[in-house]
Amino acid sequence: MQDSFAQKKQAILNDISTNGPDNLDASPKGTIDEHCIAIINLINSHRDMVTTSSCSGRVSVYLEGIQNKLVSKGNEGRWIFVTHDTMNLEDWYKTIDFQYVQEYPSSSYETRSILYKFEALILHVKCRNQSMANKLYSVAMNCGFRESGIGSNYNVAIRTSIKLDVPIGYLGDDNTYRCFVTENYLKYITNVSFDRFKENFKKLEQLYQAIEKYIINLSEPSKDSNDDFDESKCKSFKSKGWESIEERRARMREEGLRKKEELKKAKDAAEST
Amino acid sequence: MQDSFAQKKQAILNDISTNGPDNLDASPKGTIDEHCIAIINLINSHRDMVTTSSCSGRVSVYLEGIQNKLVSKGNEGRWIFVTHDTMNLEDWYKTIDFQYVQEYPSSSYETRSILYKFEALILHVKCRNQSMANKLYSVAMNCGFRESGIGSNYNVAIRTSIKLDVPIGYLGDDNTYRCFVTENYLKYITNVSFDRFKENFKKLEQLYQAIEKYIINLSEPSKDSNDDFDESKCKSFKSKGWESIEERRARMREEGLRKKEELKKAKDAAEST
Repeated sequence: MQDSFAQKKQAILNDISTNGPDNLDASPKGTIDEHCIAIINLINSHRDMVTTSSCSGRVSVYLEGIQNKLVSKGNEGRWIFVTHDTMNLEDWYKTIDFQYVQEYPSSSYETRSILYKFEALILHVKCRNQSMANKLYSVAMNCGFRESGIGSNYNVAIRTSIKLDVPIGYLGDDNTYRCFVTENYLKYITNVSFDRFKENFKKLEQLYQAIEKYIINLSEPSKDSNDDFDESKCKSFKSKGWESIEERRARMREEGLRKKEELKKAKDAAEST
Repeated sequence: MQDSFAQKKQAILNDISTNGPDNLDASPKGTIDEHCIAIINLINSHRDMVTTSSCSGRVSVYLEGIQNKLVSKGNEGRWIFVTHDTMNLEDWYKTIDFQYVQEYPSSSYETRSILYKFEALILHVKCRNQSMANKLYSVAMNCGFRESGIGSNYNVAIRTSIKLDVPIGYLGDDNTYRCFVTENYLKYITNVSFDRFKENFKKLEQLYQAIEKYIINLSEPSKDSNDDFDESKCKSFKSKGWESIEERRARMREEGLRKKEELKKAKDAAEST
């Protein structure tokens, strides 16, 4: 017989396990970010925690809606570009039909602004009780996620302040995207975003290790506890290409070795010319 | 005899009450923002809450420190410009010796970036117990302070996501401030900041009213409780020009009447031409 927390956790895991191209969630992307999967699996392996939403960090270009209030997401606001992956970031602005202009609206209320944003990792974790929520909150704060907090019903939000929020243009009367910064400036903030992503993934890795060290390894593993939730759901993550902690470690090690090898080759090539 | 929370509250109030030009706090400004004083007084009038830090919202231009990590505040990072007040915002960039250039560093790691930021209201409130913290958190969330959270020891952080975070330049090798956006762009983001301030103060006002309605007016007033803290400290706020709730209401009413009168005059003048 499952207790109330275990029942909720099971329902959430059922939802996550069927998430995919055929069953999109409410986020603009519709599926869970690949970079979050390892930490989601780690957190969900603990019987007293379950992840309820996540974003591994992203760059987005957002056209604001018709304004009643600032940065409104309703009223026809829409994403012009979104990526969670540095792979898709280079030259993103060349894929958008921007008209580069030197005109500015006199106020952001008058027109619909276009904003370039870098948003860092955010994780929401439902905990079984106050003690679990406090523990997770402390671990996150100590990893530098200084904007974290505990909400109602032991929901912990893990947040950091790595960000960019840059007005780059507005919607013209003829519905064109007017860009009042130069392409070189867009290139520069894109480069800054690469650095932000790097910092962001470093912090994600630190958080992973801290949760593993100070929470998972210090707790009774959920397998030893009475069968609170369906282990087969975890297996169904894996069958969809989700990594276990061990698989992730192996992949990271392999990637590290490959990069080292590539670096050596590049160095050798440079020395021989 | 004071309980432990009341003792801590008293110590914090002692600190606040002597804060001023001769006794600066740790913030870059060194004193409490005028715009926060009414809500600080309101919150501190409740026996189960005390404000521990506050910023009413600000525009700042920040030169990053020598980089080991991103957006480092240590290592010689410094503010080039800070204001909490729209009065000081217009044409701020004309007071800084910017050299407008069209060159960009290839990465933000290489140089010390100059960032233009709008940061919204943030309030930290220490509560007596979980129940008080939950209540304050709920009120803040319902006012749209969606990044609020409860930390350890019933400390509530009240935060919203109104922001700007714009790279505008870097420190040249010759220690000059190189600005790679145009003066017109600086003017534009300054205008956007006026709108952000407006939205920010609207939310501050909403928060004030909600705390008053759902917390203060529904609680026993602290005067009726056993004398937990020194009332004379509250008087010392007033002697420094701090407003009581009643004084603030009277001033707002007066200002409203004056604005109405001015609007009527302007309308009459327009109609007579």
